[in-house]
Amino acid sequence: MNLPVNIENLIEEFSKVPGIGRKTAVRYVMNLTNWEKNSLESFGHALLSLTTLKKCEQCGFFCEERTCEVCNNPRRAESSTLCVVENVSDCLAIENSGTYQGLYHVLGGVLNPLLGVGPDELFLSTLVSRLNSGTVKTVILAINPSVEGDATCSYLRDIISDDVEVERIGFGMPMGGNIEFLDSLTISKALENRKRL
Amino acid sequence: MNLPVNIENLIEEFSKVPGIGRKTAVRYVMNLTNWEKNSLESFGHALLSLTTLKKCEQCGFFCEERTCEVCNNPRRAESSTLCVVENVSDCLAIENSGTYQGLYHVLGGVLNPLLGVGPDELFLSTLVSRLNSGTVKTVILAINPSVEGDATCSYLRDIISDDVEVERIGFGMPMGGNIEFLDSLTISKALENRKRL
Repeated sequence: MNLPVNIENLIEEFSKVPGIGRKTAVRYVMNLTNWEKNSLESFGHALLSLTTLKKCEQCGFFCEERTCEVCNNPRRAESSTLCVVENVSDCLAIENSGTYQGLYHVLGGVLNPLLGVGPDELFLSTLVSRLNSGTVKTVILAINPSVEGDATCSYLRDIISDDVEVERIGFGMPMGGNIEFLDSLTISKALENRKRL
Repeated sequence: MNLPVNIENLIEEFSKVPGIGRKTAVRYVMNLTNWEKNSLESFGHALLSLTTLKKCEQCGFFCEERTCEVCNNPRRAESSTLCVVENVSDCLAIENSGTYQGLYHVLGGVLNPLLGVGPDELFLSTLVSRLNSGTVKTVILAINPSVEGDATCSYLRDIISDDVEVERIGFGMPMGGNIEFLDSLTISKALENRKRL
């Protein structure tokens, strides 16, 4: 038995989202077929409204005007610390921790020659001009530990002038973790980054 | 930091689908923000096209014309067996098993007085008229085992004339199951429904 074309299409669209397989997509779509017409319409229009999404001209985070909430915040705009992240979700996670009050810069990925991501594909030119303006004294690289992430950090260290302090976030044991179940790389990083009490 | 209104809206819409919590919705939406404009548009329009979804006038399954593929199939339309299911997904699961060649009838739920689902809320009147037409000799109730499902089966047995044989699908051990991990109700059903070899 074939499903109607519009249901098949929607299943296919859902399956394109990473983390949704065909079976899950079918389950979601079957539920959606029971939705009221106006609920479906508001979902559909919410999805279409993403096409008009703007990114901050300064840091690359989402915004509704030309620049984002962080860049517009007068207390943060003068900050001498800039946190460089891979993508918007990292930015949100750091904001949710509530411990960072400086500015951000969203790269939009990491250098990955195999996937054809070079410096030109990243949001780098604006980063350089922001650093050249002179207010930023410290750059925190909040970039995930991976071969590509490490390479991106080295690249950034090279292009940023020596007047600016470049730091990478600390590696070690996660809070609530259990040494017994930690991978050896994390254990060696945690031992390396030990701190005097 | 607040997310733009359209992102918040979309996260909320995704969270309305059973099985998607807020965290998962955020993950999906964050991925969608990287999609090309035309991919987003085709997803949005696929979703909106569900509002025009039609249900078969005869059995309640999805269709593109007035009646569905199963009801239109001349080899199945004359079948003397009618399988009554709760919803369309059950119908699809049975079709995928490839062992049933008769007709279907999708109730659209089960009787549930607590949720206000009475006989009038189900797709029952058409079922009665289909049975009265006389071609159907056997009704298979493929309804999930639950208090509401059992009550629905009793109700259906009562309203269907005695000329029609009414059967419920067999209960017992699922294929690939393990007696050690089976719940006691299933074990007692399996013992009750044992078959001579």
